[in-house]
Amino acid sequence: MQGDLRSDDALSGLLVGDLVGVAVFAASGASAAIAKRLDLFGVAFVGFVAALGGGILRDLVIGAVPPLAFADWRYAVTAVTASVAVFWLHPQLSRLRRAVLLLDAAGLGLFTVTGTLKALDANVPPVGACLIGMITAIGGGLARDLLTGEIPVVLQRDIYAVAALGGAILITIVHGLGLVGPIPTVAAAVLITGVRLLALYRRWSAPIAVP
Amino acid sequence: MQGDLRSDDALSGLLVGDLVGVAVFAASGASAAIAKRLDLFGVAFVGFVAALGGGILRDLVIGAVPPLAFADWRYAVTAVTASVAVFWLHPQLSRLRRAVLLLDAAGLGLFTVTGTLKALDANVPPVGACLIGMITAIGGGLARDLLTGEIPVVLQRDIYAVAALGGAILITIVHGLGLVGPIPTVAAAVLITGVRLLALYRRWSAPIAVP
Amino acid sequence: MQGDLRSDDALSGLLVGDLVGVAVFAASGASAAIAKRLDLFGVAFVGFVAALGGGILRDLVIGAVPPLAFADWRYAVTAVTASVAVFWLHPQLSRLRRAVLLLDAAGLGLFTVTGTLKALDANVPPVGACLIGMITAIGGGLARDLLTGEIPVVLQRDIYAVAALGGAILITIVHGLGLVGPIPTVAAAVLITGVRLLALYRRWSAPIAVP
Repeated sequence: MQGDLRSDDALSGLLVGDLVGVAVFAASGASAAIAKRLDLFGVAFVGFVAALGGGILRDLVIGAVPPLAFADWRYAVTAVTASVAVFWLHPQLSRLRRAVLLLDAAGLGLFTVTGTLKALDANVPPVGACLIGMITAIGGGLARDLLTGEIPVVLQRDIYAVAALGGAILITIVHGLGLVGPIPTVAAAVLITGVRLLALYRRWSAPIAVP
Repeated sequence: MQGDLRSDDALSGLLVGDLVGVAVFAASGASAAIAKRLDLFGVAFVGFVAALGGGILRDLVIGAVPPLAFADWRYAVTAVTASVAVFWLHPQLSRLRRAVLLLDAAGLGLFTVTGTLKALDANVPPVGACLIGMITAIGGGLARDLLTGEIPVVLQRDIYAVAALGGAILITIVHGLGLVGPIPTVAAAVLITGVRLLALYRRWSAPIAVP
Repeated sequence: MQGDLRSDDALSGLLVGDLVGVAVFAASGASAAIAKRLDLFGVAFVGFVAALGGGILRDLVIGAVPPLAFADWRYAVTAVTASVAVFWLHPQLSRLRRAVLLLDAAGLGLFTVTGTLKALDANVPPVGACLIGMITAIGGGLARDLLTGEIPVVLQRDIYAVAALGGAILITIVHGLGLVGPIPTVAAAVLITGVRLLALYRRWSAPIAVP
């Protein structure tokens, strides 16, 4: 698998986690598409873009072509399967709101960490690698909102992208100190997820400009 | 011409067909831009993006830079000429609705086939190549709708992208069996076009989720 | 700095001008984001995209990865600093409307010239290089408008992109005649800026289609 060769050992150990993140983000895209009354194809397509758009952008920017979303079939199949499942099951899913928010926060942490590490491995300098890590995590949600005719929710409220950016900075510093391997990787992902959940629980939000 | 060198013989034999597809998709973009009261530049730009956006995305994803739309001047000139023609002639064009739908279906078939084959030639695995073929065909229309402030029509109704995806799967199987050359290429394009026209005629549509 | 190595001497001499363009375009993005009541992160993000989106697209299309916006930290820091400054100072900025329009026209000229020259240096043929130069200059504004839910203003009124395209054609001809160096580069940028300002002053606009 081309996807695995491209990742280092620590990253390929995260494959299952990565696919969980893909499934959750696909579900968020599928839900948004259903709310706009899109058809089954539209639901699957928006799910695919929400799950894999950030990673595709990351891979284009670091020159890893074809992007993992096209090079490793497991990513596309996971995204489409999750989207179609939401299409059929969505009336039952409203009860799962808490689980979805938890998994979404986990996906945010995982995508930020893998995005930042891949950028650093591709010799992107630190500031750029942090930005690429954050864009990997929020890019799919941005594309989902544009496709469904909404101003991206990540730009409007909540501590979401900021948690990703903070985590990306942390992992870049840790990487710069030579502390690579599974432990700091997982720790950074857990930290981002925790900050995101705390922000949800405490209703933290970023300031808006005075009129 | 860089564009020709990059294509194999079967593909360069399709150049005229490719440019017909570009002209038709440009016309669809120009019409949408006129309906939104955009100026002449806006009409030409949306026409360019509708015609060439899918191919630009395809070339970025398979690492063929600069994309054909920038490497071969005939593509840009065809797209802009078609858009400007629609700008001046559009009151007469409403009578041509049937011809435009027919040519659009032909463009869908051609773009899917060339997109899928280019991805396979760039060593993209089968699932990814099918997705890239479909995105080549629908990407321009998606960008057209985003630029004109609409939720993409391809996500909302009709059997359109699904015809493209089915054709991409077929051409990938045929390619995998070693049956390359102009005959299966043309046959797949004709099949996609036929399915699309049948879907229009029979008013087939994809399901939407139950509320 | 990777960014400097990639540019030739004439271009790196323009670094300060380039960063001024980045700051001005970031300010335009930040203002649009504030008007939509986005939060501080949203303001910084839209500012970043408005300032650097065109250049990122240019670098992807010519195969210069990672794009300068990620390879040279000064670009991102300039964009974010300008955006945050607008966030805090925006009530005072309405008095500066004339200065902002002037700087925006200067940014249009600079981005067009550097975009066109980089495309020519990457061996893109002339027609493609002109298009890439124009897209470098208008791409950020397009992305800004899409992120804030608007039909891109550049497609609707004013002589803006057309000034960029005219300047891109001029610099391509001058480049083809072998007249490279700082003088024709600066002259073309000044010309684009002048045409844009004249269009503003005289209220020139492109035609729209008759209904």
